[in-house]
Amino acid sequence: MKILLVGANGTLGQSVRAALRERGHDVLSASRKDSDIAVDITDPRSIQAMYERAGRVDAVACAAGSVPWRQLSELSHQDMLDGMVGKALSQVELVRQGSPLVSESASFTLITGVLARDPIFTGTVASLANGAVESFVRAAAIELPHRQRINAVSPTVFTESLAEYGDAFIGFEPEPVRKSAQAYVRSIEGHQTGRIFEI
Amino acid sequence: MKILLVGANGTLGQSVRAALRERGHDVLSASRKDSDIAVDITDPRSIQAMYERAGRVDAVACAAGSVPWRQLSELSHQDMLDGMVGKALSQVELVRQGSPLVSESASFTLITGVLARDPIFTGTVASLANGAVESFVRAAAIELPHRQRINAVSPTVFTESLAEYGDAFIGFEPEPVRKSAQAYVRSIEGHQTGRIFEI
Repeated sequence: MKILLVGANGTLGQSVRAALRERGHDVLSASRKDSDIAVDITDPRSIQAMYERAGRVDAVACAAGSVPWRQLSELSHQDMLDGMVGKALSQVELVRQGSPLVSESASFTLITGVLARDPIFTGTVASLANGAVESFVRAAAIELPHRQRINAVSPTVFTESLAEYGDAFIGFEPEPVRKSAQAYVRSIEGHQTGRIFEI
Repeated sequence: MKILLVGANGTLGQSVRAALRERGHDVLSASRKDSDIAVDITDPRSIQAMYERAGRVDAVACAAGSVPWRQLSELSHQDMLDGMVGKALSQVELVRQGSPLVSESASFTLITGVLARDPIFTGTVASLANGAVESFVRAAAIELPHRQRINAVSPTVFTESLAEYGDAFIGFEPEPVRKSAQAYVRSIEGHQTGRIFEI
């Protein structure tokens, strides 16, 4: 399959890319820099330009999205909006614009995270965005045309990210990033839709 | 208690108002028109003005929020943004601005809905917004200061709304709106926090 991987350079994106290549797929990478296609997914025009450059693909996988990390009492209205756009509306837009352009049985695999169900301190905006994307995935699954599918991968903290984020996830059981990468493979090569793959 | 009820004139708002008054509370109503205080919750400055007029309250209950209803293939980027602002960011802003102003043990009760977990056709934006609010509620609950609490009421279609919305909710078991109103009472007078009361 020809797969467009958005956010290919992070801890997760690199692992997804490796897993998809191992399965013999043709992976086209997109991210802010150092990828086949430069894209800023918070800008709908940039997403449009990305799809024009990518041509018809058989799967879109997203491992990108950013939100502000701050205590609720220190978050501004703009922080809330930035987080919604940075991780939720950006991924929704990948699907909204992509659906008419991708192949008839293409799949979309989005990224959410454990904070949709289990909060941590300073993670309010992440929770907000993750919850939005998970409910959107369930809803979009019943409306996508042809045999298009959509799922989300919702990981806990990665073992590989403990040095950076471990303090925020005290008591959470970390999982190696390759387990989440395998969930992308399962979403793309499998036949399920509207699923949240909790890792 | 002195309770600020936002969205007091809809099917749900009227029922919540009646239930709270029956319990002897002093209910201050706020909505676009025909209420004690005029407010447009999609505008942060309007929310600020509302809290200035309301003074210190012991509970904030929201029964307001609107989203576009349209097929995924017909939704614009602006529709997605409008829905996020209209039902999710607006309610988040009620909490963000309200928390420093309300009483030390005040509660926030927000409105979501069954579409967060069970989608219907044309309900993608509603699902997106409801999912956002439910995850936000779980997250905000662990960060609100003092003994402040936050919950959401997440109803299925109301028996009273079947004539208007019934066709969209075929096969869903409707529930009388007073059951949801009672969940507001339970959220406000009870001691739970971070709960989604599914009706």
